[in-house]
Amino acid sequence: MPARAEAAMAPEPGGDEFEIIARHFAPLARTPFARGLIDDVALIEGAGDLIVTTDAIVEGVHFLADDPLDLVARKALRVNISDIAAKGGEPKYYTLMLLWPDGRDADDVAILVRGLDFDQRIYGVDLIGGDTARTPGPLTLAVTMLGAPLAGAPSRAGAKPGDDLWVTGTIGDGGLGLEVRRGGLGELDAGARDFLAQRYQLPDPRVGFAPILGGLASASCDVSDGLIADAGHIAATSDVALDIEAGAIPLSDAARAWAGGDEARIARLAAMGDDYEILFAAPAAARAIIAQSHWMGRQGVTRIGVVKAGEGARLIGASGPIALAAGGYAHRLGARAR
Amino acid sequence: MPARAEAAMAPEPGGDEFEIIARHFAPLARTPFARGLIDDVALIEGAGDLIVTTDAIVEGVHFLADDPLDLVARKALRVNISDIAAKGGEPKYYTLMLLWPDGRDADDVAILVRGLDFDQRIYGVDLIGGDTARTPGPLTLAVTMLGAPLAGAPSRAGAKPGDDLWVTGTIGDGGLGLEVRRGGLGELDAGARDFLAQRYQLPDPRVGFAPILGGLASASCDVSDGLIADAGHIAATSDVALDIEAGAIPLSDAARAWAGGDEARIARLAAMGDDYEILFAAPAAARAIIAQSHWMGRQGVTRIGVVKAGEGARLIGASGPIALAAGGYAHRLGARAR
Repeated sequence: MPARAEAAMAPEPGGDEFEIIARHFAPLARTPFARGLIDDVALIEGAGDLIVTTDAIVEGVHFLADDPLDLVARKALRVNISDIAAKGGEPKYYTLMLLWPDGRDADDVAILVRGLDFDQRIYGVDLIGGDTARTPGPLTLAVTMLGAPLAGAPSRAGAKPGDDLWVTGTIGDGGLGLEVRRGGLGELDAGARDFLAQRYQLPDPRVGFAPILGGLASASCDVSDGLIADAGHIAATSDVALDIEAGAIPLSDAARAWAGGDEARIARLAAMGDDYEILFAAPAAARAIIAQSHWMGRQGVTRIGVVKAGEGARLIGASGPIALAAGGYAHRLGARAR
Repeated sequence: MPARAEAAMAPEPGGDEFEIIARHFAPLARTPFARGLIDDVALIEGAGDLIVTTDAIVEGVHFLADDPLDLVARKALRVNISDIAAKGGEPKYYTLMLLWPDGRDADDVAILVRGLDFDQRIYGVDLIGGDTARTPGPLTLAVTMLGAPLAGAPSRAGAKPGDDLWVTGTIGDGGLGLEVRRGGLGELDAGARDFLAQRYQLPDPRVGFAPILGGLASASCDVSDGLIADAGHIAATSDVALDIEAGAIPLSDAARAWAGGDEARIARLAAMGDDYEILFAAPAAARAIIAQSHWMGRQGVTRIGVVKAGEGARLIGASGPIALAAGGYAHRLGARAR
């Protein structure tokens, strides 16, 4: 937080923003570049090449009112870290803009900070500044994350016909997890429901896979809008077609139990969002080194399709292309525009 | 805007966020570092030293519901540019997080973009990324601005006893302007009221003064919380006392007409915020070069006080220190916490 505050975080006399910054946020600013959050700015010396991304999460739109605040804070960091990782970068610094609802207890900030602190330790990132404001609207966390490319930063535009299409981890867990959090999917056992809910609340950005992307991927992005939608973005930007084999899409045990091998259900999983996996294209010559990327551990990486001449992303089932419902599966809390 | 959208900006089919980005925001991303906003990230190559700051403005808290959207957008940029300028830096790139209220016409984005475009041309800054989300709450613009220091970036911590205290421009116009916008100050003439309202709606960050700050200022910050409050921050951080002469505080003709030489009113002006002037300390040896900084033009720079051993910021009137009301003048739309 900068020492200059646009508005107080909370109306309590004890909720003075300067005190909140000193007590809660200054301990998160461990790099000297952050100037202890007592200045208006951070100064990053010798930044070199920097990857910059920004994403906000809004209560009622991207998370639920009863999601624990520490998980909300961690999700705000992780959706940004996911973007950096998908570009082959190492996340380093972030700013946080916190919109704190009128009347919400200022002491709850401590819970949020606990989550930030936890993930700072996991991912090696540092808070370097931010802003807080009161709002009559919903709790909102907007993070801008700065990272360093490890070996270049693939765009969406470089996929070439003949490339393979790969995805990390598993697809559809986040979308199913939202359904669980809304009280759905009672047909699954408790262990599966818990797993899916956690995948929704706390994505696991694939930072371990970032080191090989800069050298090997011809195009990449993270899967946040849904596998098919994000593949469509790569296809459009690279001016190619992407064919994804429905049967090759990696599923968790829980998602597999839900889909039961039904291609229509697999298509729905591929249209859900909140996966925060990495989707990328790479030349076939890189196949062996990608498949042997043992540092991925159980997260895994799966070859799911091919890049062709043409346009658009298609999902290919056992008997040909699967028709996709326009607009995809409404996995968000609010209606989607597309 | 990144191509991946957390939520749509507007529920209309024609309001698809990708289309909004392509139509409205991509033309603002003129640097190749922005990747045309079709990627999830920007890549700044060879960034060197970077000043980073972030500030959000919220409808009903930092601007009024009937403030024109182009001015709102420009204010969002300018409050951040002010922070960069106060640290002796040149603003270069920004990200924008836009929270768009449910039900607000998506076509209004064009008005907002016009304001961004205008100020990008004035200040030479480029949009490099961002995020948009729907919100059930108020319109909110959160900007993260990246700048380059021209000759170091003074902190708040370096003021030394014996230094002079300076401020650019004039003090209190923004706070009075808010009163005008609320329908007050009917005793002033229309020209004065218009001037003050514009000073509130569209601050004028002192970028022209940035080049000499890095070399000369021992401590600096922009005046956003009010002259006395921000002087208090420098005093606390530098572990010194600041004495400000009430009679030396630079006032616009309009503010002078309102104050009428009344020290209590001058004290209120010094407690208002939204000035976006630069307050700085500098050694007395720098007095001549600062006073001769002709590139400030009519904006001017005024020596308003001295740095002493001790603590706190005091306002000195004709017959000694002026008692300041706790909490200052309520110049914001909402109540302040301090």
